[in-house]
Amino acid sequence: MTGASWELKGESKRQSILNAIPERWRLEYPVPSATELRDVTGDYIRQYLTEREIKITETDAVDIVAQTSTGRWSALEVTEAFCHRAALAHQLVNCLHEVFFEAAIEDAKQKDEYFAKHKTPIGPLHGLPVSLKDQFHVKGVETTMGYVGWINTFQGNQNDPRSGTEESELVRELRNLGAVLYCKTSVPATLMTGETINNIIGYTWNPKNRLVSCGGSSGGEGALMALRGSPAGFGTDIGGSVRIPAGFNFLYGLRPSSGRMPYQGAANSLDGQSTMLSVIGPIAPTARALTLLFKAVLGQQPWLYDPLALELPWRDEVVRETKELIEKARAGESTLAFGFMKYDNMATIHPPIARGLRIVEKTLRRLGHRVVEWKPPSHAIAVEIFNKIFNMDGGADFEHHFGLSGEPRAAQVIGARDGVEMTASEIAALNVAKREYQKQYMDYWHSTAKLTGTGRPVDGIFCPLAPHAAVIPNQYKSVGYTGFVNVLDYTSIAIPVTFADKKVDVQPADASVNDFEHIQWDYDAEAYDGAPVGVQLVGRRLQEEKMLTLAEYLGEEIAQDAK
Amino acid sequence: MTGASWELKGESKRQSILNAIPERWRLEYPVPSATELRDVTGDYIRQYLTEREIKITETDAVDIVAQTSTGRWSALEVTEAFCHRAALAHQLVNCLHEVFFEAAIEDAKQKDEYFAKHKTPIGPLHGLPVSLKDQFHVKGVETTMGYVGWINTFQGNQNDPRSGTEESELVRELRNLGAVLYCKTSVPATLMTGETINNIIGYTWNPKNRLVSCGGSSGGEGALMALRGSPAGFGTDIGGSVRIPAGFNFLYGLRPSSGRMPYQGAANSLDGQSTMLSVIGPIAPTARALTLLFKAVLGQQPWLYDPLALELPWRDEVVRETKELIEKARAGESTLAFGFMKYDNMATIHPPIARGLRIVEKTLRRLGHRVVEWKPPSHAIAVEIFNKIFNMDGGADFEHHFGLSGEPRAAQVIGARDGVEMTASEIAALNVAKREYQKQYMDYWHSTAKLTGTGRPVDGIFCPLAPHAAVIPNQYKSVGYTGFVNVLDYTSIAIPVTFADKKVDVQPADASVNDFEHIQWDYDAEAYDGAPVGVQLVGRRLQEEKMLTLAEYLGEEIAQDAK
Repeated sequence: MTGASWELKGESKRQSILNAIPERWRLEYPVPSATELRDVTGDYIRQYLTEREIKITETDAVDIVAQTSTGRWSALEVTEAFCHRAALAHQLVNCLHEVFFEAAIEDAKQKDEYFAKHKTPIGPLHGLPVSLKDQFHVKGVETTMGYVGWINTFQGNQNDPRSGTEESELVRELRNLGAVLYCKTSVPATLMTGETINNIIGYTWNPKNRLVSCGGSSGGEGALMALRGSPAGFGTDIGGSVRIPAGFNFLYGLRPSSGRMPYQGAANSLDGQSTMLSVIGPIAPTARALTLLFKAVLGQQPWLYDPLALELPWRDEVVRETKELIEKARAGESTLAFGFMKYDNMATIHPPIARGLRIVEKTLRRLGHRVVEWKPPSHAIAVEIFNKIFNMDGGADFEHHFGLSGEPRAAQVIGARDGVEMTASEIAALNVAKREYQKQYMDYWHSTAKLTGTGRPVDGIFCPLAPHAAVIPNQYKSVGYTGFVNVLDYTSIAIPVTFADKKVDVQPADASVNDFEHIQWDYDAEAYDGAPVGVQLVGRRLQEEKMLTLAEYLGEEIAQDAK
Repeated sequence: MTGASWELKGESKRQSILNAIPERWRLEYPVPSATELRDVTGDYIRQYLTEREIKITETDAVDIVAQTSTGRWSALEVTEAFCHRAALAHQLVNCLHEVFFEAAIEDAKQKDEYFAKHKTPIGPLHGLPVSLKDQFHVKGVETTMGYVGWINTFQGNQNDPRSGTEESELVRELRNLGAVLYCKTSVPATLMTGETINNIIGYTWNPKNRLVSCGGSSGGEGALMALRGSPAGFGTDIGGSVRIPAGFNFLYGLRPSSGRMPYQGAANSLDGQSTMLSVIGPIAPTARALTLLFKAVLGQQPWLYDPLALELPWRDEVVRETKELIEKARAGESTLAFGFMKYDNMATIHPPIARGLRIVEKTLRRLGHRVVEWKPPSHAIAVEIFNKIFNMDGGADFEHHFGLSGEPRAAQVIGARDGVEMTASEIAALNVAKREYQKQYMDYWHSTAKLTGTGRPVDGIFCPLAPHAAVIPNQYKSVGYTGFVNVLDYTSIAIPVTFADKKVDVQPADASVNDFEHIQWDYDAEAYDGAPVGVQLVGRRLQEEKMLTLAEYLGEEIAQDAK
């Protein structure tokens, strides 16, 4: 391929992904166009699957491991079902970067042999297929991270001895836990956008509405899981990249605080930028599946293998305390309290998001919880800090990696291209500004203890994930709703709520013309129809156990009210 | 004072510190010169004190709070005794920047009233005088951090409303805990040297040998405590600044990993530099006093008030596990294992340090512990990373603060003056290099599990704190022995061992001429005679509970062998 243009290299890679799908799983007939058929989830994809495959792939991760860990389902059967469904998903929405089904099937057989011999599972994820964003290195498999210039290299470096042999720390731990790895999912080159677009697979579409985006940057994870081609997976999040595709695909997604999940040995953009760290988080169709994955990885003591991971094991006592709070609330003895923010004073929300928040508020009030209007320190400061971080190197990192192949940069990519790098003194001042903002926000959070009536500050806050449902291509204009969480390094979980509905989500007559970047006016009830709507439940820093417990509880309750 | 030269401003401040000492505590007769009398500790300073004052001030912090928390000793009596002794100490070695004895005495009276009324202490540090490095803001008291340009300002800013009203988070917590604050101790301007020198108080001398340095940058803490003018205090450490003055003054000093003690609201050098964070740590004459302070502060939940503090409470279970290991070792059922490094392949050690290490090795072998030669990844890499961090801003921060008054910079200050700032890309590359070094070191540490015979990697490592005992002015040429710990963000405790002795610590005939910067040749048995010698016990990141427990155990055992 030497000397070939970036188009040819990208196309060759795209074709090699398709070629890796076994012939028997290829779609024989052309898929209807998105305008003919928006939604390829549910019955559409099921037509290509056996009853047994449907049953397996529509079982959640917790129930899957309950079966595989007791020998009722073989790892092989489960793995084959998900490989098949993932292959179909990719052909419908372009969600995979790497396909290694043969290795997965071999791996599954070994797990079955292990179980047959020892009558015990390898670990808490025994036989569970787990999908990975294409930042994680897996032995024998390439990592392009969406860059054409990374094809046939190791992170863009020619002749690097790690090429094809390296495994990221998370991958090593997942293998120890008994998980089966079988595919890597699509990302936007640079990772810095809420859509998924690159010069290899093109654009990853939303399976519920193929006119809109699957989100990003862990977009392939979201799209694959919406089609149930994966029961659970891992993405990364520096500005919303786990939560956005979770919300855009009616899934749960956890953005933990930095230091809990091991990033060691994963590819990244802007590697070494330490003002605001990208973090790894699980994505899955159920909240309890997030807990399963998160807790399992902590059980591997990542702090012994990743110098940036914190020695903070899973805290069962926090789960117990939170469950007690929930039980007391159910019994009417006390209540939980939540901050509620509908508008960040920058980006007004579209009607489907407003409705989603009304559903959540209804749920909280139905359950007797206290709802406190959230009036935090200006989120405009968070966005200013966020933008400075993304622009810190003047675009040097992106230019370098696009430059490897000469491929163009997508319009959606966030970040400067001016070549002006910040200096050490400017970065230090930015770090101080960030810390001071974190302190103000922290103090505001604690000050709500006066308002909740529980003796505690709010237990979490609910807010939008984005101004819109799963977005129309090229219309993602503000990541402030997710980005403020990264600036604060808070815990946040995307919770699915509803779907945009052109019949009920109509533009209010009184929408203001002063709305930030006219986001309100971009609303197109027809185009958005059917796009998933999620919200965000945000907790303080390092509150993963509490927020996961609350998300399991409230996610189910919200689902009741969304019916 | 407007328009006065920096010399006049510095002298005026110096005089105001002396003026704040009550007349009755001023030394009437000239102190003998250092050549006439090196050592002003022990009987020399005791001559100015009553028997009762001697008894109180030579009691360790744990025993003091045992008395003050039960009403046997009044907070007032304890506070007055330490104020008196601190006043003497300052007149002997220039160790104080701020003296606020009247406020302390008023505070102590209130604590006594509280106890009289409630029959219970305010907190675990009830009535304990605690000294503070002059980076912490205390209401009504100035913070100069050794800069003439900070006099009559807030951190160099004129007319800042926080001037005189601000309290650092640690100070707020210490007050909650019942501690009495009474003085702030001297530092080198910039904080970036292992000696203590500035244009306000001049040079802080070592009380055991006034020809040599008290260390730095928390040098005033070390000198004050060597004279027992404080039972316990807090310094900060970005390259050894807690451990060096601890070691140079026959004290214990803890450098915790970043995120455990609250730095919020303290003054700092290079604030916002986030590649390697300065950390707060306690210093005291006994190891158990470090534990008392560290545990007490964690009890205040600093993570609720400092956005960079980690939610990691004091772990009693780690203390229990460590004590069990110690008990099993005592019973001969198993053993502990320690890495042992005498030389970092850069700076050869002076004879007193070599002897100190031999004492420690003897102790470990006497106790039946396993001693493993420590052969880590090259410390030269750590020093290179360390130097880049210190030079990151090309000297901009220091130039600014020295420039406020026009005062000159001391020759000892580490760091560039070339005005060349690193760019965002260069800093990112540095952060990656640091993380990779940390990973290599971590993997090496774990690999020692094969060598220890305990089934665990080494429980800690022993190494020098510096190539020399408390150093001759201007001869501190390598902070590599302490600095590597900061690069790794490891836990480390300085442990006192012995004193340089010209009769036994003689230059070996075979010292190599190739020694790094000829440190070995700077050895002057006569000049160093009497200077304290400490060593360092280093643990992995966030291992404070284990290392404090080991330091309490081994510190006492080492003292036996040092006799």
